[in-house]
Amino acid sequence: MSGAIGVAQRRLEGGDKASGRTAYAADVRLSGALHAEFVTSPYAHARVTSVDSSAAQAMPGVVGVFTADDIGTLGLLAKGEVFYAGQPVAVVVADDRRAAADAAEAVRVRYERLPAIVDPRLALRADAAKVLPDELRSQRADAGAHGADAAQHASSARVNVCGESHFARGNIDEGMRLADVVVAQRYRIPALYQGYLEPHASVAVPDSDSLTIYTTTQGQFAVREEVCSMLGLPEHRVRVVAMTVGGGFGAKFVKLEPVVAALALRTGQPVRMVLSRSTDFLQSRPGTFAEIDVRIGARSDGTLTALQADLLMDAGAQEDGTVGIAAMMLGSTYRVPHLLVDGVEVLTHKTPTGAYRAPGAPQAFFALESAMDELARKLGQDPFEFRLRSAVQKGDPRANGAPWARIGLLEVLETARSHPFWQERKKGEDEGYGVAAGGWPSGTEPAAAACRINGDGSITVQVGSVDITGTNTTFAQIAAEVFGVGTNAVAVKAGDTDTAPYSGSSGGSKITFTVGSAVLQAAQDARQQVLEMAAQELEASASDLDMSDGRVFVRGAPSRSVNVADLARRTTAYGGTAAPLVGRGRIAIKRGAPGFAAHVARVRVDRRTGEVQPIGYLAVQDVGRTINPMAVEGQIRGGVAQSIGRALGEEMRWGDSGQLLSASFLDYALPRASDVPPIEVALVEVPSEQGPFGAKGVGEPPAVPGAAAVVNAVADATGARVRELPLRPEAVLRAMSGEGQ
Amino acid sequence: MSGAIGVAQRRLEGGDKASGRTAYAADVRLSGALHAEFVTSPYAHARVTSVDSSAAQAMPGVVGVFTADDIGTLGLLAKGEVFYAGQPVAVVVADDRRAAADAAEAVRVRYERLPAIVDPRLALRADAAKVLPDELRSQRADAGAHGADAAQHASSARVNVCGESHFARGNIDEGMRLADVVVAQRYRIPALYQGYLEPHASVAVPDSDSLTIYTTTQGQFAVREEVCSMLGLPEHRVRVVAMTVGGGFGAKFVKLEPVVAALALRTGQPVRMVLSRSTDFLQSRPGTFAEIDVRIGARSDGTLTALQADLLMDAGAQEDGTVGIAAMMLGSTYRVPHLLVDGVEVLTHKTPTGAYRAPGAPQAFFALESAMDELARKLGQDPFEFRLRSAVQKGDPRANGAPWARIGLLEVLETARSHPFWQERKKGEDEGYGVAAGGWPSGTEPAAAACRINGDGSITVQVGSVDITGTNTTFAQIAAEVFGVGTNAVAVKAGDTDTAPYSGSSGGSKITFTVGSAVLQAAQDARQQVLEMAAQELEASASDLDMSDGRVFVRGAPSRSVNVADLARRTTAYGGTAAPLVGRGRIAIKRGAPGFAAHVARVRVDRRTGEVQPIGYLAVQDVGRTINPMAVEGQIRGGVAQSIGRALGEEMRWGDSGQLLSASFLDYALPRASDVPPIEVALVEVPSEQGPFGAKGVGEPPAVPGAAAVVNAVADATGARVRELPLRPEAVLRAMSGEGQ
Repeated sequence: MSGAIGVAQRRLEGGDKASGRTAYAADVRLSGALHAEFVTSPYAHARVTSVDSSAAQAMPGVVGVFTADDIGTLGLLAKGEVFYAGQPVAVVVADDRRAAADAAEAVRVRYERLPAIVDPRLALRADAAKVLPDELRSQRADAGAHGADAAQHASSARVNVCGESHFARGNIDEGMRLADVVVAQRYRIPALYQGYLEPHASVAVPDSDSLTIYTTTQGQFAVREEVCSMLGLPEHRVRVVAMTVGGGFGAKFVKLEPVVAALALRTGQPVRMVLSRSTDFLQSRPGTFAEIDVRIGARSDGTLTALQADLLMDAGAQEDGTVGIAAMMLGSTYRVPHLLVDGVEVLTHKTPTGAYRAPGAPQAFFALESAMDELARKLGQDPFEFRLRSAVQKGDPRANGAPWARIGLLEVLETARSHPFWQERKKGEDEGYGVAAGGWPSGTEPAAAACRINGDGSITVQVGSVDITGTNTTFAQIAAEVFGVGTNAVAVKAGDTDTAPYSGSSGGSKITFTVGSAVLQAAQDARQQVLEMAAQELEASASDLDMSDGRVFVRGAPSRSVNVADLARRTTAYGGTAAPLVGRGRIAIKRGAPGFAAHVARVRVDRRTGEVQPIGYLAVQDVGRTINPMAVEGQIRGGVAQSIGRALGEEMRWGDSGQLLSASFLDYALPRASDVPPIEVALVEVPSEQGPFGAKGVGEPPAVPGAAAVVNAVADATGARVRELPLRPEAVLRAMSGEGQ
Repeated sequence: MSGAIGVAQRRLEGGDKASGRTAYAADVRLSGALHAEFVTSPYAHARVTSVDSSAAQAMPGVVGVFTADDIGTLGLLAKGEVFYAGQPVAVVVADDRRAAADAAEAVRVRYERLPAIVDPRLALRADAAKVLPDELRSQRADAGAHGADAAQHASSARVNVCGESHFARGNIDEGMRLADVVVAQRYRIPALYQGYLEPHASVAVPDSDSLTIYTTTQGQFAVREEVCSMLGLPEHRVRVVAMTVGGGFGAKFVKLEPVVAALALRTGQPVRMVLSRSTDFLQSRPGTFAEIDVRIGARSDGTLTALQADLLMDAGAQEDGTVGIAAMMLGSTYRVPHLLVDGVEVLTHKTPTGAYRAPGAPQAFFALESAMDELARKLGQDPFEFRLRSAVQKGDPRANGAPWARIGLLEVLETARSHPFWQERKKGEDEGYGVAAGGWPSGTEPAAAACRINGDGSITVQVGSVDITGTNTTFAQIAAEVFGVGTNAVAVKAGDTDTAPYSGSSGGSKITFTVGSAVLQAAQDARQQVLEMAAQELEASASDLDMSDGRVFVRGAPSRSVNVADLARRTTAYGGTAAPLVGRGRIAIKRGAPGFAAHVARVRVDRRTGEVQPIGYLAVQDVGRTINPMAVEGQIRGGVAQSIGRALGEEMRWGDSGQLLSASFLDYALPRASDVPPIEVALVEVPSEQGPFGAKGVGEPPAVPGAAAVVNAVADATGARVRELPLRPEAVLRAMSGEGQ
């Protein structure tokens, strides 16, 4: 072991990104490429009575105008009826982007408006009309790819329910009777746009017997599977090239790829599509709106007796799948003898929602950790003591009764409590500190990797995952550690779906955990091959050999050694007598490694305006084992920044008739650098059982507790409790005036 | 076994080539790319006294003018002295190709002319001046990559000898004394341009910590190694992307890549270079000129007693390495007790020569098979009987004394003899039949491959070899055979040097033999993984299972079965519990599988003009095992066509001062379709010990015997013998008049 892991390492691809050399999907400009633009519905719900494309077809440069009748719905296009404002009704293909955009405006679509169900409570009513016809009800749910193990069943009683979760333990009424104090409140969390720098963009290029798709995606193999499934193509004839992603956060799974693929096959030419920001707002799948009722009871000593929660999640005009994770995490974080959690997910005539970083968990933990804070305050208990008394640990039952694996919830709470940020807290005037915990179950997916020793002894790791968070840098560290070399001696190369080993999508906090394990296995395998070659050369047993800095030597007799490069050259030379050195990793981890975080926010509240300014922050997280502290801390800081956006500004809003009111960054308040306070980070290492060197996925947990921490800090500063995100100044003022408390 | 092998299969990539979709290196047009053009020497030997680029530098769009002083010689650029006409002296980089070309003309180079040694016999003289200074004498020899196992040593006695081969057995004088008949003649074979459709083209793109090169090459890993070696870069930081090759024939190993790489690093921008046809003629490394003296003696019954040969090969202005193969094959084909072979390779001030399809072998066999034919005629023996009496077989000594492996020389001669083309030969007026044999030792190089089962059960084979002859189609058949599916269920994908498994260059008739073996191993490995998954599912032992048409079934109980696709989907799904199915092949075959061919040409000679028209042809070849008959026959037909060019028209000629006189297709006579007769092909299968299913490399043997077969046919038709290629009508007329016989 050389100490390559645990050492801060700048992201290997960072230079090209910073200097502008990196090519993104929209930079793929092929000669002869056509451009596609959508014609979108202005109405949230309407029948499409006619599409007249004659004027558009006659415009210069226009190749064709296609509807679902021509190319299928492809998961996006309306077929006879539209179900959300902004849904594509047709797609125009032209020689260049401007011609396509002009022609899209010239397509005359006649609509017969239908009543739009925008409010999820109305959609839930027994007498509600169906939001979607039955045949559109079995779409893939993106958030499902994030790993709920909760049972979800569609209810037939309420026609618009598209997902349900139900967990029970003990007797909830009995539990509430045992409580000395009960908090019962409703919490609202809006839908959130993922806010990446790069809108959706895809290019498809037809070949005589195959198709290549360049795209911005978190999972190229997922794109391949879905495109093949939609278009009826075999997977070995479709190549997906994941370009560098300009931000994903759960929104970049499959979007435009089936459309450009179908158009490329139809026209026989490359077809390129790049969403404008406003169309991206309309069609991306934002994080899910949730309204969560929590009733939680405790004895006066702080022992929890009962937890009841009702979750209502609004999926928009397509099934989502987030409610399962939300309900599970909400019911699994604290030991409680009497539990009842009911979750429903309902369809409405709005942009379909989906995965936004830890889908379901920030919603669940905003409600849970707000309620826990209210309860602690009512009991006059320290927020850490109160949580530590009931926090789950290994063996405790989750909501579904299955036991927790070894987790670090206690450890992160204890670390946060003993951290100087908390111990030495200085509460100035109108200032407060808020505590919240949160976690993420972590996903699993089979993964493969290869590790090749090149002819000069340098090392190339081959993976199929998409690097959205610095995972390639982490893989280089893992391989460097195995070979006892510096990280610079390793290159990590992500091939496309034709050339790369299989990997799941970069979502669910699982790439370091799963692909990293495959990389470790592949590197160890290649190392063993080198040792066996060296053993022959040195007339020693491979088990007596060690390796560092490009040399293999006899342990205890380091002068008996051979250069790795000298061995490797024999495997890549004309007439060479040794097989190429190629290590292989193939893994299927069957159980995730859940990750927990404890956050403490410090805020200052302007009592005159109600404005909240975060002025300090502590994020503590169990990462299993830190491979690249710089990447891990970067993830945590990013998660905190997004949580502050969630707490203080971001909201996807729709008007009464279903029009999106926040379809630009003028109307959608991402946090700015000045909104984000200095962040202190503390890492806790409770090793996972299967991740490389004990590492866990770290991407999602830091996005979970932040909003509750901020809101709890406001309560600490002012005594005022706001239960609806984002936390608007006027709501803070109202709460401070005692309204609704 | 499904019968995927042995079945004619159109080349999988043929459709894209025929429809114009295929992208070649020159089609890589990147925005911001600079273009490079050479300034070349008009003189064969001169001192460069000054390079004045001031006028060129001032021209619009010119970025820079670079000489070896700026960027190194990079294997091409002159440094102070030029050694052949057409050698680059400087390279101009500009915004577009026209600006670069205009500026190249504006670079003023002053030369001091030096005496040029053009004739290799003069270069051999003891008092000859040195053609090259010593420090330029250790360049890589391209033909070395084709696999001579003969000893080659540079002689110090003759200053311009750059390679020597010497083989002796018995006592040559004694052997000649035992002969009843002796033939002693000199044969001349000119240098030949490889005549591919696509001139050399390369593009290099710099990144912040790496470099990508798109190029036309037969071996992307060889390019990577050489570029890294020349520029001092580690191999894991250089990516070489082998574009589809528009013909290689031995000339496309490494050429422009180091130049564009150095210029890209120097300018920080992509640099593109595409040779014009005339520059390609001047700088490509044509097949080697040879002058071979053969003295061969036999008893009157046809038993060979002695074989002596002196080979003089002209390497031009750089070491070549062809003489070893030529000398070895010349001395290893017939059993002869007394053998003496001496070969020298000499430097001259001409374009450096190199590999052209079976480098050295067509030269050697033209001499050997012409001499054998002369001897058979003198003895009045049937050409087949005469050869069969002495043809080598397994265990016979090669020229170096090492025994032959199992080979098929006897079998191809016997098959040709019994073929109707020969048995039912009809010799019209002025017509004749000529027989010749030839062979190729076959190369080896370590190779790796992977075989992946995709989520839908389709199969992707991953290789790093460059497909110049349909090898990817052959690999698909190999994998299809293993899985019991149609070839269409398999895709073969060649990644670049970052993403692909290691493979040697596509030269030396070794890709099917070596990479094909790795593909077979990888497919068998993946098949075993599938069987083991199925065994669990079917509660059977994997050894009791078989597979075909996408199903695994219990042998003897085929209704107990499971779909491969159903198994595979579990390895590529969120939460999947089985590792991805990835078979691996890693092989190092230590001994080649030599391939032999026997050809029979039928010609008609115009007695008035001396013109020779081939009117029929039989090519018999031992291919070990036929995997794709269509590809094998295509190789054979192409080899015959090139041999007819070699026999009747092609010649690289230089003037007395070293100027290339044949620098365009107006001056260089490639055969046209009308010159090539109908070709009958017969395949012989003497299985190799290590190739996949017994296959051998088939690319080079069919290019070997043809010229001798044509010349022998002319002798059969007219009694006239021409010993200098190409066979010009005036030489035929002279020979018919009895001159020089």
